[in-house]
Amino acid sequence: MPVSFESDYIAGAHPEIIRRLSETNLETLPGYGTDPYCARAKEKILRACGLEHGDVEFLTGGTQANSVIISTMLADYEGVIAAKTGHISAHEAGAIEYSGHEVLELPQENGRILPDTLRRYLSGFFADENHEHMVFPGMVYLSWPTEYGTLYTKAELEEISGICREYGILLFVDGARLGYGLMSKSADLTLPDFARLCDVFYIGGTKVGALCGEAVVFPRGSKPKHFLTSVKKRGALLAKGRLLGIQFDTLFTDSLYFRISGYAIDMAERMKAMFLAHGLELYLDSPTNQQFVILDDRQMEAMRDRVVFSFWERTEDSRTVVRFATSWSTTEEDLAELEKVLAGLD
Amino acid sequence: MPVSFESDYIAGAHPEIIRRLSETNLETLPGYGTDPYCARAKEKILRACGLEHGDVEFLTGGTQANSVIISTMLADYEGVIAAKTGHISAHEAGAIEYSGHEVLELPQENGRILPDTLRRYLSGFFADENHEHMVFPGMVYLSWPTEYGTLYTKAELEEISGICREYGILLFVDGARLGYGLMSKSADLTLPDFARLCDVFYIGGTKVGALCGEAVVFPRGSKPKHFLTSVKKRGALLAKGRLLGIQFDTLFTDSLYFRISGYAIDMAERMKAMFLAHGLELYLDSPTNQQFVILDDRQMEAMRDRVVFSFWERTEDSRTVVRFATSWSTTEEDLAELEKVLAGLD
Amino acid sequence: MPVSFESDYIAGAHPEIIRRLSETNLETLPGYGTDPYCARAKEKILRACGLEHGDVEFLTGGTQANSVIISTMLADYEGVIAAKTGHISAHEAGAIEYSGHEVLELPQENGRILPDTLRRYLSGFFADENHEHMVFPGMVYLSWPTEYGTLYTKAELEEISGICREYGILLFVDGARLGYGLMSKSADLTLPDFARLCDVFYIGGTKVGALCGEAVVFPRGSKPKHFLTSVKKRGALLAKGRLLGIQFDTLFTDSLYFRISGYAIDMAERMKAMFLAHGLELYLDSPTNQQFVILDDRQMEAMRDRVVFSFWERTEDSRTVVRFATSWSTTEEDLAELEKVLAGLD
Amino acid sequence: MPVSFESDYIAGAHPEIIRRLSETNLETLPGYGTDPYCARAKEKILRACGLEHGDVEFLTGGTQANSVIISTMLADYEGVIAAKTGHISAHEAGAIEYSGHEVLELPQENGRILPDTLRRYLSGFFADENHEHMVFPGMVYLSWPTEYGTLYTKAELEEISGICREYGILLFVDGARLGYGLMSKSADLTLPDFARLCDVFYIGGTKVGALCGEAVVFPRGSKPKHFLTSVKKRGALLAKGRLLGIQFDTLFTDSLYFRISGYAIDMAERMKAMFLAHGLELYLDSPTNQQFVILDDRQMEAMRDRVVFSFWERTEDSRTVVRFATSWSTTEEDLAELEKVLAGLD
Repeated sequence: MPVSFESDYIAGAHPEIIRRLSETNLETLPGYGTDPYCARAKEKILRACGLEHGDVEFLTGGTQANSVIISTMLADYEGVIAAKTGHISAHEAGAIEYSGHEVLELPQENGRILPDTLRRYLSGFFADENHEHMVFPGMVYLSWPTEYGTLYTKAELEEISGICREYGILLFVDGARLGYGLMSKSADLTLPDFARLCDVFYIGGTKVGALCGEAVVFPRGSKPKHFLTSVKKRGALLAKGRLLGIQFDTLFTDSLYFRISGYAIDMAERMKAMFLAHGLELYLDSPTNQQFVILDDRQMEAMRDRVVFSFWERTEDSRTVVRFATSWSTTEEDLAELEKVLAGLD
Repeated sequence: MPVSFESDYIAGAHPEIIRRLSETNLETLPGYGTDPYCARAKEKILRACGLEHGDVEFLTGGTQANSVIISTMLADYEGVIAAKTGHISAHEAGAIEYSGHEVLELPQENGRILPDTLRRYLSGFFADENHEHMVFPGMVYLSWPTEYGTLYTKAELEEISGICREYGILLFVDGARLGYGLMSKSADLTLPDFARLCDVFYIGGTKVGALCGEAVVFPRGSKPKHFLTSVKKRGALLAKGRLLGIQFDTLFTDSLYFRISGYAIDMAERMKAMFLAHGLELYLDSPTNQQFVILDDRQMEAMRDRVVFSFWERTEDSRTVVRFATSWSTTEEDLAELEKVLAGLD
Repeated sequence: MPVSFESDYIAGAHPEIIRRLSETNLETLPGYGTDPYCARAKEKILRACGLEHGDVEFLTGGTQANSVIISTMLADYEGVIAAKTGHISAHEAGAIEYSGHEVLELPQENGRILPDTLRRYLSGFFADENHEHMVFPGMVYLSWPTEYGTLYTKAELEEISGICREYGILLFVDGARLGYGLMSKSADLTLPDFARLCDVFYIGGTKVGALCGEAVVFPRGSKPKHFLTSVKKRGALLAKGRLLGIQFDTLFTDSLYFRISGYAIDMAERMKAMFLAHGLELYLDSPTNQQFVILDDRQMEAMRDRVVFSFWERTEDSRTVVRFATSWSTTEEDLAELEKVLAGLD
Repeated sequence: MPVSFESDYIAGAHPEIIRRLSETNLETLPGYGTDPYCARAKEKILRACGLEHGDVEFLTGGTQANSVIISTMLADYEGVIAAKTGHISAHEAGAIEYSGHEVLELPQENGRILPDTLRRYLSGFFADENHEHMVFPGMVYLSWPTEYGTLYTKAELEEISGICREYGILLFVDGARLGYGLMSKSADLTLPDFARLCDVFYIGGTKVGALCGEAVVFPRGSKPKHFLTSVKKRGALLAKGRLLGIQFDTLFTDSLYFRISGYAIDMAERMKAMFLAHGLELYLDSPTNQQFVILDDRQMEAMRDRVVFSFWERTEDSRTVVRFATSWSTTEEDLAELEKVLAGLD
């Protein structure tokens, strides 16, 4: 079997999570997220965010979280701004539109919306005499890390947050891979920063060691009224909410979330060094667990049967951008095997 | 701690499921339901349904399954017929309406739509000269067992299926508790019967031993085109589809699904006998794992701190209907404790 | 050609409206309801409602008005309460559900929701321990006159309005035939009463002399923010808003709206007297422009080719309820012709 | 009062339409588009399109038509392709997204999608290994003339139609200003061409002489089943359908539609010649009734109080693109007045 770097969700859950699910399995608990594990997980997350006043809610996956959050927080006449490469723009099969709201796509750079681009868009929108016939921007959606593994700096996020507040619109950060951003060597943003600068964000579980689950943080009372009812209305309420509560309780015990994210970053750095050592061209300089490499057809052919990675896009000169991802489940053996394959390319 | 009969989802998963999740945890598998466990589970389910040509898809929970199925199978101008007490009518926070379709509520008897009621409604609809200004009935939704634990007989389901085919509308059975129906002493319907009579139905996991998950069966090519895309659009696609595949593979190995359902039925029968022995009044005669009892205020008071059950509704003479549910996790000790409490009521 | 009482929209517009459309036709006016005729009509309507602070917006038809109003004023987790016979419940092809909201149907009496029924429903809803899993009631929808031509008294509307305010939900009156109610001999409600007791209501034009158009009144700042954008989003914004403004300006000049409504009421009263004189059985005692008569098959047969009326429903004893409607366009000749037909039935 | 070229809907209806509305006003007619005027108009339109087998349905306005057509013809998993400048992309307040479908925006040139752009997009979509996680393209939306007054040639439309058929997706042409295209000196497309190449298109009334109304043409059985019910569900069904039927019957009698469109084109050509004669810079070369001119601030200032036109956009060098539109209501006096103003700019 080939070694796989296909994604950060190729294995089950971190073994500690499986252990805790097993240990608590026979306990009698109330449903729909009202159990003590959910309560404890929420508390730990709020504490990690430095939030005295705030709410945490668990949802099952990223597209679901994006759709529930955006559609419950926007006004009827509003849409959500996102990079053209944002997950909600391209890869969620129209989940936001399904909720009746438009994704307002902005140009991007390596997956990021530049603050200037945002400012120009917003000032242009309100200057347009016909803007009442257009979808109002009601929220900015960023992913951190982005779909290209890149990060916004603290200065940039502060600038974007400032623009949002100036225009009275919400800032939402999709943190499906938040752990990998937080533990990146390049990152200067922390959980309390997100809690301070955003109106809502989530801490991804599915791609960071859980079987499923995203923890949505609503700082300072931003949680929509009767949120549970809106979640149920969208088919997103788990009967056995314990499944999410126990996982996040485990991830936020003894810093497990940060430890496994840090481990994946280390593995990614070593992988990147290997790519460079073997003369492969990076598509961009990603400081997180996703690494993008440009391969020519010969290289593709040579690796195909021995390593699994993800197709990303074709370049204009007929080469292929592919993605390699690490996670808690990446092993020394995986890297060693990759090294062998890369050596064969030389 | 009081003993709990609050619902059939108060415990985690059947231990065999936890064991399999643990065993397979480190395997590298592709996402979104394309792994071999999903494939194997689908095969086993099709075989159990006696279907040579059919599809199975996994979803996470009951409300989600109802909403995805109904909204992808109805035409724009159609709604879904359901009993006024049907889960989609009352207890799903408007999930069907969220998808843009009306639930057309019919009168019921102990949770069931009588075939005559259905026939009268349909013939009345098409006889109404203004029916083009009304929502067309496009599907009949039944739950089996119903929300009151009752069952349709084979003759009744055949009659209803015949009416649906006569009018060219779909028949959908919500089987969130299907196992408890199939193993009921009163049932004369089998999985192959459902596969033969329905256009779609699901085999509930969440309430029958799984952590989460419902297996939707589409007999004879009834699965909507590009279903995966529609599932994703509704935020219902799990990245780690293995979570559902492994659970259903386990439930359909060595008849586990039927064995644990049968066990819960045995426990429910014994519980029912205990209620009658202690002179409690049954609200209706349920042949499945949910038992409905009418309590007066004194009895409510006496039991409150020692047994957990679900509030159902108030009767006109100011008594209370409550529900007791059994499942695979109900123990001998639970029943013994209930017996003690009931003895105290005499 | 048979004489027609089929509905109150069988003719074009009141001739005065046609005259004004013609007179103003070549004027250059801005679009989307920003012209002076719209402004003037709004002013006159606010004055007629005794509102110093309020808004008026024009929409094209009744189903559209209901859907726009309800979907822009409800919260995500809310539905709208209506009589089972309410227009939005039965005859709008699921327009409210299309907007993602449920119509919560209550039992009715001759088209009316009794205040006690409403109170019992609301107190029951909030007493239900599971109500967070259900659609919250967010608005009461009444039609006045109802679909059966009946009226609520001022005492009843005050009671209903009081209940709504007690529970913090909105009161919306569908006044597609408001004029016929206001001019009914039995009515004790006035436009200022509606403005005082409702959160939103509309003054119907389509059925009261206009080619199309409903004037929605939002008292005391209840108009949703950026309403124009929400109207456009629903495809309900007319480019030539003048079409609605000129019509309502005309209807509210020299009390035309009230005069033509009163005329239709007079004709309806004479018609009703004719039915009784000829021994026909009224289905109910309607004080407005719609009269409901029960015909046996012989009577149906005898009238069929000479008078046009609307089929309403079959009675249990196999007779037919039919509706006769008057309007500004009903003539003396029409009544004389009807008299001849009725005489022939004796 | 300044002379206005603000839009093609600044006047009421063509006087012939007003005359016919007036003449037929007292006729008793059935509702909802079942009257003989609708029937006659449909027949005339089908004949003008050279369609033996086809359907015509009337809707009230352009955004409504776009939203009804697109949402009833797309499958659940599909979106609609449009130019980034297409009306549905930018200026309809999210009406398509309200129906749950995404607008897939393509780059454009003067408002037009180049066939190559379309082909590249479609082949790229299906080549993408992840396309099942994305919105499927189900329809191409073109406007003809475009929002910039430009036209596709017959060769281009044939190519686009061919691509659509190759990929099995629908072709829809928004003809809000179809008349101005058809009568343009540059046009080589006719109504029968549209009927042959499109799956659906509409003939705009609102902007071509009607008070309101668009005639949607469904060639060869492409009309969605139970379309009336779907139209009602969207609040788009007029009770007095005669209002639309009489208007289109008039427009398609004695070629009125073509005559007034041709008149507007003549006026636009003369206006364009005046702009060029006075040295104004055209933003692009429009062959239809909308002319786009680039003005500097001095010119804007000088014209502001004497001519009404529409703001379009700012150029990068801080000048302003504005639009002048002609229609049937543009007079010799209007052009003479414009000439005076332009002379003053020299």
